Amino acid sequence: MRRVKIAVLLALAASATAGTLMAADSPAPLDLMPLPRQVELGAGDLTITAGFTVAVDGAGATPRLQGGVRRMLRRLSDRSGLFFPPSTFLELEGRAGAALRVSVERPGELVLGEDESYTLLVGAEDIRLDAATDIGALRGLETLLQLVTLDERGVTVPQVTIDDAPRFPWRGLMIDASRHFMPVEVVKRNLDAMAAVKLNVLHWHLVDDQGFRVECLAFPRLHEAASDGNFYTRAQIREVQDYAAERGIRVVPEFDLPGHATAWATAYPELASLPGPYRIERSWGIFDPTVNPIQEETYRFLDVFFAEMAALFDDEFMHIGGDENNGIQWAANPEIAAFMAREGYPDTLAMQRYFNERVLEIFTRHGKRMIGWDEIFQEGLPTNVVIHSWRGREALAEAAGRGYAGILSNGYYIDLMQPTDFHYLNDPLPADSPLPEAARRLVLGGEATMWAEFVTPETVDSRIWPRTAAIAERFWSPGSVNDVADMYRRLDQISLLLEEHGLLHLKNRPMMLRRLCQCRELEPLDTLLGTIEPVKVYRRNALRKDTAHPYTQHSPLSRLVDIAGADAAPARDFRRTVERLLADRFTTAADVDAARSALLLWRDNHAAAVPTLRTSPGLAEMEPLSRALAETATIGLEALELASANRTAPGGWLAPRLERLAAAREPVGEAELMVVDPVVALACFAAGDEGAAAEGCRPAADSEAHAH
Amino acid sequence: MRRVKIAVLLALAASATAGTLMAADSPAPLDLMPLPRQVELGAGDLTITAGFTVAVDGAGATPRLQGGVRRMLRRLSDRSGLFFPPSTFLELEGRAGAALRVSVERPGELVLGEDESYTLLVGAEDIRLDAATDIGALRGLETLLQLVTLDERGVTVPQVTIDDAPRFPWRGLMIDASRHFMPVEVVKRNLDAMAAVKLNVLHWHLVDDQGFRVECLAFPRLHEAASDGNFYTRAQIREVQDYAAERGIRVVPEFDLPGHATAWATAYPELASLPGPYRIERSWGIFDPTVNPIQEETYRFLDVFFAEMAALFDDEFMHIGGDENNGIQWAANPEIAAFMAREGYPDTLAMQRYFNERVLEIFTRHGKRMIGWDEIFQEGLPTNVVIHSWRGREALAEAAGRGYAGILSNGYYIDLMQPTDFHYLNDPLPADSPLPEAARRLVLGGEATMWAEFVTPETVDSRIWPRTAAIAERFWSPGSVNDVADMYRRLDQISLLLEEHGLLHLKNRPMMLRRLCQCRELEPLDTLLGTIEPVKVYRRNALRKDTAHPYTQHSPLSRLVDIAGADAAPARDFRRTVERLLADRFTTAADVDAARSALLLWRDNHAAAVPTLRTSPGLAEMEPLSRALAETATIGLEALELASANRTAPGGWLAPRLERLAAAREPVGEAELMVVDPVVALACFAAGDEGAAAEGCRPAADSEAHAH
Repeated sequence: MRRVKIAVLLALAASATAGTLMAADSPAPLDLMPLPRQVELGAGDLTITAGFTVAVDGAGATPRLQGGVRRMLRRLSDRSGLFFPPSTFLELEGRAGAALRVSVERPGELVLGEDESYTLLVGAEDIRLDAATDIGALRGLETLLQLVTLDERGVTVPQVTIDDAPRFPWRGLMIDASRHFMPVEVVKRNLDAMAAVKLNVLHWHLVDDQGFRVECLAFPRLHEAASDGNFYTRAQIREVQDYAAERGIRVVPEFDLPGHATAWATAYPELASLPGPYRIERSWGIFDPTVNPIQEETYRFLDVFFAEMAALFDDEFMHIGGDENNGIQWAANPEIAAFMAREGYPDTLAMQRYFNERVLEIFTRHGKRMIGWDEIFQEGLPTNVVIHSWRGREALAEAAGRGYAGILSNGYYIDLMQPTDFHYLNDPLPADSPLPEAARRLVLGGEATMWAEFVTPETVDSRIWPRTAAIAERFWSPGSVNDVADMYRRLDQISLLLEEHGLLHLKNRPMMLRRLCQCRELEPLDTLLGTIEPVKVYRRNALRKDTAHPYTQHSPLSRLVDIAGADAAPARDFRRTVERLLADRFTTAADVDAARSALLLWRDNHAAAVPTLRTSPGLAEMEPLSRALAETATIGLEALELASANRTAPGGWLAPRLERLAAAREPVGEAELMVVDPVVALACFAAGDEGAAAEGCRPAADSEAHAH
Repeated sequence: MRRVKIAVLLALAASATAGTLMAADSPAPLDLMPLPRQVELGAGDLTITAGFTVAVDGAGATPRLQGGVRRMLRRLSDRSGLFFPPSTFLELEGRAGAALRVSVERPGELVLGEDESYTLLVGAEDIRLDAATDIGALRGLETLLQLVTLDERGVTVPQVTIDDAPRFPWRGLMIDASRHFMPVEVVKRNLDAMAAVKLNVLHWHLVDDQGFRVECLAFPRLHEAASDGNFYTRAQIREVQDYAAERGIRVVPEFDLPGHATAWATAYPELASLPGPYRIERSWGIFDPTVNPIQEETYRFLDVFFAEMAALFDDEFMHIGGDENNGIQWAANPEIAAFMAREGYPDTLAMQRYFNERVLEIFTRHGKRMIGWDEIFQEGLPTNVVIHSWRGREALAEAAGRGYAGILSNGYYIDLMQPTDFHYLNDPLPADSPLPEAARRLVLGGEATMWAEFVTPETVDSRIWPRTAAIAERFWSPGSVNDVADMYRRLDQISLLLEEHGLLHLKNRPMMLRRLCQCRELEPLDTLLGTIEPVKVYRRNALRKDTAHPYTQHSPLSRLVDIAGADAAPARDFRRTVERLLADRFTTAADVDAARSALLLWRDNHAAAVPTLRTSPGLAEMEPLSRALAETATIGLEALELASANRTAPGGWLAPRLERLAAAREPVGEAELMVVDPVVALACFAAGDEGAAAEGCRPAADSEAHAH
């Protein structure tokens, strides 16, 4: 058996160390996310009835704002059952005595750094929302909708004064539509959810080795030959941009070059650095096909291509990608090697700098600013280029120190299935950053990245949400807002509200279980799911790589590992309970009871789950994990009874149990049990001196399961 | 208290009287819907593994068929977790030794009456699917997917020989996109579901008083001024038609004229019969605005309009509507009145015949055949016009008797929230029809109609599905397939399979409950929902018409009445159990136990539900219904204990209970309890002679709640 490193005690303690500061004067019970810059709570409430009316005025009372007000009214009515008459929706202008008055100075522009501030004043009788731009007013409407309380008093809003503005101007979500295509409706519902948590950039990853996803008039083979028919038409690109603009969201398209180029090469092999033919890639990883940087045809082609895309996409920025060029094709092409030698380019990166300079000329000629991953950062790059860091804060700080603006994605890779608090506590610009003020302003924000190797339209929402709401708070709220427990509490509520936008993050879970079991009785499966998560970081692909059935673009993403979330709440609650038990030495009866209840449920769940697991081909693989849960819970119960009775386990009790727990930590079906660590901690505690001495009880810093 | 008519005993018995014939040789355990014409079951099974492969051959091996095969493989993989490699999806031609061989003679055409037959032969080692057209082969692939069994043996298909073809060539679903707009993704997922149950016509109701939903280049005010911005672009119309065509489904657009014309008049008031201005209608009902049939501008306008639409829509047919012209505007316009007098048109219908003749000329000039509602039927109409009957089978038979083809929608109005068996037993051409053979062939089929006054994109799936699967069986399977109990059994399974297409009919129920209660503990609400249904037929609008908050296009459709289904399964099961108890005089212990369990659950549910009901403004209105359920269950338990102990209730026991039950039948929040009738039956039985004599125990034929 391989040696298992256990990171129990330290890991358990880690997430309790987060600060407890919240926004000034923000009272705990408000379930806002992101938390505003300043919140001052009054004494009473304002009641909303079917007579509620809205007036919009000022030079910024745009159709965009009116649309936002109508959607707000729709959501309010749907939640509450209030029958607003048609006039409430249709008559928003010149409405005297309205319950909500929205005053806006000017139409906002969809550009980096636009004013998104607003003030919201809820009094006893009416509500005032003031903003410089209609985009700021949209942000304020989302805050108002989060303030609405439904309870026995009816529909109310607490009296409150909010003064709010974002910390960072670039708050993005990247959606990869190449690895698995994401139809327009997926993008739209995620734009709605982005708006709900005040994100303002959709970074649309449209091209990668596995597919070219945008229609191109000039070079139609791009979408015809390299997409399996799954691409966005020009009309759909227009439709998505309009939809985003109505919500105050910029759309930045990415066309990854010069690496990740299998799709380009499939359509036009002459673009590649080695002769074809090519076929679009069906597997996951880093692949060789790379655009040829030394032939003029490449730049003539890209000039025509980017001219078309620059006209199709509205935003000032286009994303060139630029990442993970492995240099293999360039080294293998003698002409490119000779060119590099002649020009004195010592390595792939230097060659890529040449390529990038040429592309930058093209971007500039077509009126676009460039953004690209770390690899594009180079001496002599104009400072209006923005660096997108997948490498980390240090790379970002280095660029900022040299005058380059940048955004951070390292630490926000939501595809890696890490827990929310890991992302939440990752700050693009930590309080202790040594950067001078001018350089600090160059840190523009960040983006959560939804790479799509392991998501489909069915599961993508559950990978993005609700975790990305916490990342949105990191980008919007003051850096001092970092109370993890409060974040999780609010996240639970926000997760429910996000369903208003048609997101599938909660409702596809039972659907996917029903599909596997062809049954309706889901409780044992649901209990099992409460304790497991997909394996983290890049392990999922690796676990199958050398098996008879490695992952490809055609693999099912419908199994229990796909239904399981990144942040299993019952497991998390159990870990917190055990932390407290260890800290107060089992003196709080309520915690002992809570831990016991959870362990009993898990111990007995296996027998209930087995009939379903065995009769479903798609679930059968998980039987060992279900059994391991029962064994883990059994050990946990023994330890809990010992510890809570203030007794120590007899000699020799611990070692065989640690072995069984180590086995229980092995992934099954690319998922892993998330309740093993706290049971190890319980067992070690119960074993007294023997536990203190046991190697299996010592924390290990590099445990992948605890990357945070 | 108003006199309540109770239709208990008769109604309970009615749905048990359906025939029990099934398709020849079709064994009960196959969960197919629609049932094939002929099924011959073999002895063993064929096992599907990750090595499963498909070959398509013949002149009909079209891209459409290949797409259908790929979707089938995707669904099979997602259900089972089988890892088919990319080659399984990508290499379908010239594949020797494939596990499934699909042979097709020719490409199908998307026209009325195209051959949709197929034969499916599952042997021990491989599967053969043969069809004249690729459309027939798509139908066979759906049958194959329904045959797949998941259990402890793995993924298997029973050895079987199926010979199948549709009974009727026109099997449609009408979707009304005017009353509430239905975005493209709603239409697409419903097209997928239609294909799954072998429906072949989407009738797209694009224009009505409440909105004009299609972009028009020639007259842009139609979509600009009369849609609130909610319309299908030409690109989207193309997209939907392509999507439908890939699934072998025709798309027939409807442009309702000359009545239901408020949207036309809002955009172009000069089209109407009285001066405007007009605004699109926000309420439900029959409205006055009607196109002016005596001015030549009308026909010049329609000629240009229909020229554009004839080019935009592919199908041979366009639907002219023609229904519910109330004649008020025509009578009020002196010129129209004079015209009618001059021409000798005695009534609105005669005037409309003139209008319709003129429009028919236009249709014909642009190469389209006309279909319209009953009202277009007239002397001298060319026999290539098809009559769409909302009035009933008799109207259809009359038209057929005079040489006109027709389809039936009367009895398939799924918006009226009637139970599935009501629709299922409604046959367009009953076995006892007196029509001669030639006329019988003119009955082309039927359409389920999803009128959209009370549905949104969130709820529309739950109104269409699963009930429409049973209607699809009525249109496809032999008329002798009419076992209601077996239909319901299979419908339960098909309902789960339909979720594969992203339908929200099951998964939006908990989501909508969560939105109202802002909570996650849904059990008491779910129990309550198991006993209630929305009021039937046209009662919902009427119940609010004269209140402070009548229904409009802007009303919330998010309340419990919208979450409740048309066919509450626990209530239905309880009714069946009580039927059996009454029939065998309470001698089956299992039935007594089942009834008792249900009644106990319902009696005790109120206390569990009240905290949630009271703290949710959107649910609070339902507290009386929850209480009525508890009272009904209490009476039911008393009666059950008496009857099962072979005792009779004491004198005077029955009357006050019948009064309480009558009160419990009153709708609350436009929903009604579906378990009152069987409890009345129990109480009447338990009261012995007193029950036999009581007026409240006598069935009433006209009870609206039992329209079936």
